Amino acid sequence: MRLRNKPWAKDFMGEHPDILIHEDEKTVKDWKEIFGNENPIHVEVGTGKGQFVIGMAKANPDINYIGIEHFDNVIVSALEKAIETDKPSNLRLLRGNGANLEELFETGELDRIYLNFSDPWPKSRHAKRRLTHESFLARYEHVLRKQGEIHFKTDNRKLFEYSLVSISAYGMILQDVSLDLHAEMPEDNIMTEYEEKFSAKGQPIYRLEAMYNN
Amino acid sequence: MRLRNKPWAKDFMGEHPDILIHEDEKTVKDWKEIFGNENPIHVEVGTGKGQFVIGMAKANPDINYIGIEHFDNVIVSALEKAIETDKPSNLRLLRGNGANLEELFETGELDRIYLNFSDPWPKSRHAKRRLTHESFLARYEHVLRKQGEIHFKTDNRKLFEYSLVSISAYGMILQDVSLDLHAEMPEDNIMTEYEEKFSAKGQPIYRLEAMYNN
Repeated sequence: MRLRNKPWAKDFMGEHPDILIHEDEKTVKDWKEIFGNENPIHVEVGTGKGQFVIGMAKANPDINYIGIEHFDNVIVSALEKAIETDKPSNLRLLRGNGANLEELFETGELDRIYLNFSDPWPKSRHAKRRLTHESFLARYEHVLRKQGEIHFKTDNRKLFEYSLVSISAYGMILQDVSLDLHAEMPEDNIMTEYEEKFSAKGQPIYRLEAMYNN
Repeated sequence: MRLRNKPWAKDFMGEHPDILIHEDEKTVKDWKEIFGNENPIHVEVGTGKGQFVIGMAKANPDINYIGIEHFDNVIVSALEKAIETDKPSNLRLLRGNGANLEELFETGELDRIYLNFSDPWPKSRHAKRRLTHESFLARYEHVLRKQGEIHFKTDNRKLFEYSLVSISAYGMILQDVSLDLHAEMPEDNIMTEYEEKFSAKGQPIYRLEAMYNN
């Protein structure tokens, strides 16, 4: 994603503490208190401009959604979109690093983690940065409940091939796999910005659901 | 596959007992005796016209190959091909039913099983007939050594999706997955007749290697 410099981003973010949380400020409250209920929590790691997580929050009011994004200049787009949709009460945006999940959530606090169109990091020496590398799978396992789930979509064939093997080697169980999601589009599929762009070009979208076997 | 009636098939098969074995006659010898050595044994279930198993036998003289095929009218094509290639000494064709593997092989006798372009049996009520259904995975496990492997290729997306989930649910580990085998064609890939036909049309070929976690 091209990162345009947005000097106004920091101020804008600070004006909406009801929906946007900075990882440095998170320690003061727990998520049940933030949402005001005990509904299941689903997290998208790398939420980008937010279309997916906001769409999911609107479609599923009984689930709490948190979209994590590392870059100020990107998360402000998600913030703008959340404001346009009247800030769903079951949605929070979290400006933070997906590698720090264990500092952002309690053990077993989450029900599901979404990974959508993550950076493929094609070079072998960067494999550790892929969000389906075993080191990330271990972090997810820590913050997910027992038999928690990962749902993953991508247009990148090599990343998907890698992820199938990595997830299987970790001992997780594949529950659902689609190698052309849009060929039989599920009714409840919410598209990300990337998904709209790449599927319009006719590229297949790959998707999997996997469960921890713990 | 269109099955042409070949009234001469039975006689022709009977003329080549050095390379073609009928499942009813197998009980008299064990496979080490048949091959005259203790090399690893790899089996292709549903060997069709035999291009794959014959190509593998020629390329890998230190491995013994057995191609199993249920239909007389199909296995005679493999037999013709085996005769044309001077009947490699590490190859046998076995006229028999893949569902009877436990009667054809001793426990733990095999090193690897190949499944290539198996019938997809698209209807849900026929799922049990798919060669990656759990009932078949259990049969393969029985005749394979510990941590034996299945290598599977197909052009059928739905069958491959099903197989990834079925193999994972069985507790097997995916070791290698390709969602477009011919995009970076491995040097040692031997194509089946179907594979040549479908890849020439530009259809992606799916492939996986999975290991029993036993």
